[in-house]
Amino acid sequence: MTNPTYRTGLGASDADHIWLLGHDLADDLLGKITFGELAYWMVTKRRPTEGQRALFEAVLVALADHGFTPTAISARVTYLSAPDSLQGAIASGLLGGGSRFLGVTEDSANFLHDVIDGLDELPTDDAGWDEVARIVVADTKAAGRFVPGLGHPVHKQGDPRTPRLFELAREHDVFGPHLSLFEAIGRVAEEVLGRHLPLNGAGVCGAVLADIDFPLGVARGAAILARCAGLLGQLAEEIEDPIAIDMYMNIDRNTDYQPPTS
Amino acid sequence: MTNPTYRTGLGASDADHIWLLGHDLADDLLGKITFGELAYWMVTKRRPTEGQRALFEAVLVALADHGFTPTAISARVTYLSAPDSLQGAIASGLLGGGSRFLGVTEDSANFLHDVIDGLDELPTDDAGWDEVARIVVADTKAAGRFVPGLGHPVHKQGDPRTPRLFELAREHDVFGPHLSLFEAIGRVAEEVLGRHLPLNGAGVCGAVLADIDFPLGVARGAAILARCAGLLGQLAEEIEDPIAIDMYMNIDRNTDYQPPTS
Amino acid sequence: MTNPTYRTGLGASDADHIWLLGHDLADDLLGKITFGELAYWMVTKRRPTEGQRALFEAVLVALADHGFTPTAISARVTYLSAPDSLQGAIASGLLGGGSRFLGVTEDSANFLHDVIDGLDELPTDDAGWDEVARIVVADTKAAGRFVPGLGHPVHKQGDPRTPRLFELAREHDVFGPHLSLFEAIGRVAEEVLGRHLPLNGAGVCGAVLADIDFPLGVARGAAILARCAGLLGQLAEEIEDPIAIDMYMNIDRNTDYQPPTS
Amino acid sequence: MTNPTYRTGLGASDADHIWLLGHDLADDLLGKITFGELAYWMVTKRRPTEGQRALFEAVLVALADHGFTPTAISARVTYLSAPDSLQGAIASGLLGGGSRFLGVTEDSANFLHDVIDGLDELPTDDAGWDEVARIVVADTKAAGRFVPGLGHPVHKQGDPRTPRLFELAREHDVFGPHLSLFEAIGRVAEEVLGRHLPLNGAGVCGAVLADIDFPLGVARGAAILARCAGLLGQLAEEIEDPIAIDMYMNIDRNTDYQPPTS
Repeated sequence: MTNPTYRTGLGASDADHIWLLGHDLADDLLGKITFGELAYWMVTKRRPTEGQRALFEAVLVALADHGFTPTAISARVTYLSAPDSLQGAIASGLLGGGSRFLGVTEDSANFLHDVIDGLDELPTDDAGWDEVARIVVADTKAAGRFVPGLGHPVHKQGDPRTPRLFELAREHDVFGPHLSLFEAIGRVAEEVLGRHLPLNGAGVCGAVLADIDFPLGVARGAAILARCAGLLGQLAEEIEDPIAIDMYMNIDRNTDYQPPTS
Repeated sequence: MTNPTYRTGLGASDADHIWLLGHDLADDLLGKITFGELAYWMVTKRRPTEGQRALFEAVLVALADHGFTPTAISARVTYLSAPDSLQGAIASGLLGGGSRFLGVTEDSANFLHDVIDGLDELPTDDAGWDEVARIVVADTKAAGRFVPGLGHPVHKQGDPRTPRLFELAREHDVFGPHLSLFEAIGRVAEEVLGRHLPLNGAGVCGAVLADIDFPLGVARGAAILARCAGLLGQLAEEIEDPIAIDMYMNIDRNTDYQPPTS
Repeated sequence: MTNPTYRTGLGASDADHIWLLGHDLADDLLGKITFGELAYWMVTKRRPTEGQRALFEAVLVALADHGFTPTAISARVTYLSAPDSLQGAIASGLLGGGSRFLGVTEDSANFLHDVIDGLDELPTDDAGWDEVARIVVADTKAAGRFVPGLGHPVHKQGDPRTPRLFELAREHDVFGPHLSLFEAIGRVAEEVLGRHLPLNGAGVCGAVLADIDFPLGVARGAAILARCAGLLGQLAEEIEDPIAIDMYMNIDRNTDYQPPTS
Repeated sequence: MTNPTYRTGLGASDADHIWLLGHDLADDLLGKITFGELAYWMVTKRRPTEGQRALFEAVLVALADHGFTPTAISARVTYLSAPDSLQGAIASGLLGGGSRFLGVTEDSANFLHDVIDGLDELPTDDAGWDEVARIVVADTKAAGRFVPGLGHPVHKQGDPRTPRLFELAREHDVFGPHLSLFEAIGRVAEEVLGRHLPLNGAGVCGAVLADIDFPLGVARGAAILARCAGLLGQLAEEIEDPIAIDMYMNIDRNTDYQPPTS
């Protein structure tokens, strides 16, 4: 039976060369691009513009670490239990990168994309976006669902990342329809829903990814890459100053044993 | 029983602020640092110098992807089998980041560090480093072991990343004792071992990490972070142009069934 | 702030005892129950009847290994790359336990459960089940969907596990409505769909799990536990007789490099 | 280039058959062996004797769950964060199956094996084993190391699993040299070391695995398989009665932020 061949446009090498994305890794890339730029390029197969690069790096910086999230707890207790495998501790943490804690970025991106995809033509000013936003927020509420990225359990008055990301996107000229719509949702939400709900930063990151043409099918991947660096930081800190043993022992000694009666 | 507290110097937040490394994430970091810079900073708790940042990003770029390695194969077939979990596919690939394929970087860093740690004083010129290198290579051979980072299965005449990384380290003024020793090993290896063995790029990355004061206990983590971006690229490509099904089916239909006789 | 307590009915211990499910592990369980029985008991918090135990073990045996599936390939190449972490290789394989390859069991169980849940009363004979099955198969087709567990890419004339599992369920008196419905679907499928589609074994396993009152929210977990044993076998074999290096090298050297043009 | 073939003696199938270990899965195995028996058989390629099967199942039962260990915490918080991927939560927990928490079983097995491998002939009575044990314990102490499996942080007077596993091994006639040596170590430890240290159950499990000819290179795998069932129980319980959110929030709100000064 014929042996298949395996297509890739990422990395390849022969005795004298290493190619990455069709470029000579040593001559064309090393020292000439940042890691963030490379990550965007590998995912999209397009070299980012300077604005796309800047905003992608900002998204990665925004999502890298949020203290003792489930991902950090999982990575630390796994390292405690299996210090022989740093990769296992990182993988253990990244597995928490699912629908609930890291999913907002992806969900927002897809939500905004679907709305925009359904518009016959894009609004040309804030008033036009507000009109779209009012309908979207009302329809979502009527369907018994939530607008992804709207509201935050801690930053109830406003997520500090939000205005800064809007500002950066404008400065770098990548403020497109997804950010326009999300910003409008932020303006009209209280009017439609009857209570103040801020736009959270993870949601803005989703809008940014959509506006810089990051493929939405792997939008979650941006959050995972960001968190990979964050977990490396958590584990470096755990090695220097261990606290996972306290996490574990505090949980263990507060066990409330309720055995089944059968 | 007292509830313990959990120390961290990475991320934290309250209603109005998000801190990262003691800085205001929104005001001080977003748009002002690259993702690579943040990763270094979180691991070391020191902001990198411009030279340290540049070389750290170069290491990440150098290690991001090498085509169809075990990590890429694992990520792709896992995605084929469980497309509902991008994080699972990435984690599956990163779990290959162990002693054999991604371990060279870490092993080289530790090997060079141990030699330098044992020197009473550092050589001041190439001749001095060559002398150290001759002893180290000879001793390692006598002990029946290999110098990590010496030799490459494909790049037999020379890994193209190696001279470029040396050059970058010199340009950015971070060429220190680990790179000096590794370069000297490259110069004397043929004389001592009787055959040409090039310095491989993953080994140079280890020497760079040591010279930019990256903590060696998590040196493997730099390779894992780099590969995380590479795997994201592999998976984005797999979604666009699936080949994992061919990998799987080619292996499956070439099964040679040799059941146990008992 | 109050320290919470953590409820569990599974394991707990003090200086002199280890409890599992409210029983003394040493005195009441060791040597008295099989591992399969314990697994069922821990998941359901109910000790299985002998019939439930027998069928649960049969499901685990049926799903343990299917040769070079994506899960086996991933586990083997991960072990090749990181032989220092057996747990990483197993985890890497299990991460393929998602919607596509191991998901049929779960999907079948849920599909059958939803149908039965919607019936006002259960049929009392085969003719009655056939009538329900005809409607279900026709409705599913009309909705453009497939009946989970119907059809198999290899066992086109019939999956050998299927009749045996039906027989075992009858022997052990646990043949309930889910198996009745699934069996009826097998009888009527050709008549409704116009082509022969056998009931596959993974689907029957789903019907069995539903009929032995295994919680459907973790039905996938039965397949994962089964596969955990299978992967351990794959890795023990890989250690004795390595083939992952051939998998990797064959893929690598059949790379078809198609770099992006931008 | 020639397409390699891939040897396996585990599972294979064609249109009409599924083989496992050379046997017809449907006719010869389903309903005739327990899952524990299959797991042993797949790893060793030898069908266990009834005694080997019974003790292997006892080891799996002994190691399945120990309450809120790092593996259980990691699985639960990962499920909280990514409830869309049960396999990810299980994998996250299993990644803690490393050197520290689940490693004792493997370490004990290897430690005992090495001692016995070095004996010219095996003692024939308890006095003979005690003599060997005294030397081994003294030598290990002199080398600044610990005897794996000796001592337990909670069961200071004696691990309740220990006498029961010895008893079962005797009953089933698989009490061999590894258990003999370990039991002797338990008898002489206080005399040699000057304080009471009980034989812990995980260590006895290692001795059992060695005496039932389980391959020591994958001894850790027995603990991982056992824990896989335990984690499935933990996750089924978490779904019914969620507590991971309390684990996470209690850690998060007890953060002690100590940012770096640089």
